[in-house]
Amino acid sequence: MREPTPSPLPDDPAGDAPSPRPEPPGAGVVVPGFRFAAAPCGMRFTGRDDLALVACDGPAAWAAVYTTSSAPGAPVVVGRRLLARGKPLRAVLVNAGIANAGTGKAGVKDCEKAAAAAAKRLGVRGHEVLCSSTGRIGPRIDLGKLGKALTGLVEGLAAERSGDAARAIMTSDSVPKRAVATCTVDGRPVTLLGIAKGSGMIAPRMATTLSFLVTDAAVRQRDLQQWLAEAVDASLNLLVIDGDTSTSDTCLLLASGAAGNAPLRRRHRDAGAFRAALAELTADLTRQLARDGEASRKLFVVRVEGARDLDQARAAARSIVGSTLMKAAIGGGRLDWGRVVSSLGASGARYEHERFSLAYGETLLVKKGKHQGDRAARRALAHLAEPEVRLTVQLGQGKAAATAWGCDLSEEYVRSNAEPL
Amino acid sequence: MREPTPSPLPDDPAGDAPSPRPEPPGAGVVVPGFRFAAAPCGMRFTGRDDLALVACDGPAAWAAVYTTSSAPGAPVVVGRRLLARGKPLRAVLVNAGIANAGTGKAGVKDCEKAAAAAAKRLGVRGHEVLCSSTGRIGPRIDLGKLGKALTGLVEGLAAERSGDAARAIMTSDSVPKRAVATCTVDGRPVTLLGIAKGSGMIAPRMATTLSFLVTDAAVRQRDLQQWLAEAVDASLNLLVIDGDTSTSDTCLLLASGAAGNAPLRRRHRDAGAFRAALAELTADLTRQLARDGEASRKLFVVRVEGARDLDQARAAARSIVGSTLMKAAIGGGRLDWGRVVSSLGASGARYEHERFSLAYGETLLVKKGKHQGDRAARRALAHLAEPEVRLTVQLGQGKAAATAWGCDLSEEYVRSNAEPL
Repeated sequence: MREPTPSPLPDDPAGDAPSPRPEPPGAGVVVPGFRFAAAPCGMRFTGRDDLALVACDGPAAWAAVYTTSSAPGAPVVVGRRLLARGKPLRAVLVNAGIANAGTGKAGVKDCEKAAAAAAKRLGVRGHEVLCSSTGRIGPRIDLGKLGKALTGLVEGLAAERSGDAARAIMTSDSVPKRAVATCTVDGRPVTLLGIAKGSGMIAPRMATTLSFLVTDAAVRQRDLQQWLAEAVDASLNLLVIDGDTSTSDTCLLLASGAAGNAPLRRRHRDAGAFRAALAELTADLTRQLARDGEASRKLFVVRVEGARDLDQARAAARSIVGSTLMKAAIGGGRLDWGRVVSSLGASGARYEHERFSLAYGETLLVKKGKHQGDRAARRALAHLAEPEVRLTVQLGQGKAAATAWGCDLSEEYVRSNAEPL
Repeated sequence: MREPTPSPLPDDPAGDAPSPRPEPPGAGVVVPGFRFAAAPCGMRFTGRDDLALVACDGPAAWAAVYTTSSAPGAPVVVGRRLLARGKPLRAVLVNAGIANAGTGKAGVKDCEKAAAAAAKRLGVRGHEVLCSSTGRIGPRIDLGKLGKALTGLVEGLAAERSGDAARAIMTSDSVPKRAVATCTVDGRPVTLLGIAKGSGMIAPRMATTLSFLVTDAAVRQRDLQQWLAEAVDASLNLLVIDGDTSTSDTCLLLASGAAGNAPLRRRHRDAGAFRAALAELTADLTRQLARDGEASRKLFVVRVEGARDLDQARAAARSIVGSTLMKAAIGGGRLDWGRVVSSLGASGARYEHERFSLAYGETLLVKKGKHQGDRAARRALAHLAEPEVRLTVQLGQGKAAATAWGCDLSEEYVRSNAEPL
């Protein structure tokens, strides 16, 4: 994967509102056509913003990838219906603290009422506002508290407040996540900006966590959906924190068209540049999410090369990065390459021992099935002590490759998730 | 699931050799036609038996279910070949400490040499001895140490030594596992006895762990294989300790025919009784394995009822019992039913909130989507403090049901699996 692109724009001269939470990457970047806001409503958290609003000055084409859970939260149920209608969106309202999941039909009505209330304040239609919720599963959202906070929220909308929005959607995250990517379309600069949250209950094979992406490019709706799905498959769907799947996973992409380009479509000469920027954006957010994995101390990046096909490469990388035993070993600095073989095998990816090579960082520990000796083992062990552990597997079966992201498993993760509520 | 059947036979009058490890259930039970032995060879462990031998007085029909890993250990590779040949077995040799996995073609040769050496001591043919190995992945087995121990091992064979064999195959297990079931075939008493090992690296969708089952019934080979696969699907394949899949998972069943019955087959009037006894045996071993899950303190049993079909019932039970967040919550006595919804949804099983009910032990906490209040919550919380936590989910979608077994996730699990080797 590529490293995050340094922001091409100057730092925000005024800065966001003072906050004890650090400023995420991409400070000062604005995306024409979009404004952001954050406000406290106190639905569960106190002393912090827990509502975020992303508003588009005009109708925005949009795409979404949702959780594959068969028990999705109400905002996912409602969002899928809106997506099927294919009409543009004007705003996204997010609350943190209560997931509005495990709430059945009553939760769906709550979600629709929240959207209607926000639409009224914004002067748009109810079906032009999408809701998203994250937090405790089971309780219903508090429409009263939400309603009271809406006026202030809408009044606070500003182009440069994406950092406040990134902070407002946090739950167990320790840092806010934001990423920026750019490209050129029809000779015009195009910006993509995304914010995300997520720390626990994260597993692959779905759009994991909540991510909200915006761009000023004009993009045909159908292509936007396909490109987002592709980008998510290569990034968020290769992220594993604890193997648990959330009811609320959502990745949204809104396109304002404010860049003024001819709408991007498959055959547009700059479609490739836009897709590459989108891939960069989602990979950057994925990396930020993995680094902030709940109670983790290390980023764990697994690259699988030489797989027979892309499915096998992704399955193998995901299986290694998600293995409980691998994660415990990474946390403790334990060099046990047998666990790599075991978790690789669990994926079903084609494996022949005599073609299998494995590197820890830059150190080749196993070359075509042969252990490279004590010196290599000492170097590999030293790499395990670093804050970012990188494993590269060569399967020698073909040309497909994939990268997956995760983190170590700590005693603190178990402790904090075992505490009585 | 059924509780373990009390042994119908008197306690072993002589008892096994003195051992600091406790005697597993089923003491004194013998299965006509079979003898067991254990001996130390010091391949990795010292001061304990690490070799086990199961020998049949004559040719035994056999069946096996192996790991679905694409990186299986050498004994799995060799065992699959033998299974495909369909010839009877005379003995099974098991070593604990080195898994002979991640060893490629050299490991396969080592395995064949070990079988040949044991066959020579037993006076049978090489392909009549099956090898099984468990332990570290990567290193090769030590044929020299193994060879030296074989004479003593064979000399120690005795009908009542299955407990010694159960102890010799242990790795990170804290207690040996053995179970017994009985039935009547053609008016004759038939006994089934099984031993098993496994504590970590345990996940569903394969024959998990090592289990060796024997019976004195005569059973047609083809039916034996099908019935074993069915029993494993309803027991070992519904066991999750840590979600990791071993390279060496094996469940073997040997039938000596010493009971003298007409060979069991699908249409035999006692086929149902035998299959029920086999199901009881594998469920009992599964329960023992779950209770001894690595560094766990609680047995966690999840029953899902009212699923649309058996696949959905099993997937849902497995998903709940294997969820990292559920396991941490069970360990800490945290009542968070939202995590049940979340892990249920992750399975893909059909879910409608208004039809969903959930009980902790005997306490109904959620009834058709409605939380049953503080008193129910207090009782559910009290159940969470018990050493065996039982969750029952009613989906209200159909008639299929399944039970899955697991354990809590402890800080000690993370600590012990993070320690540098």
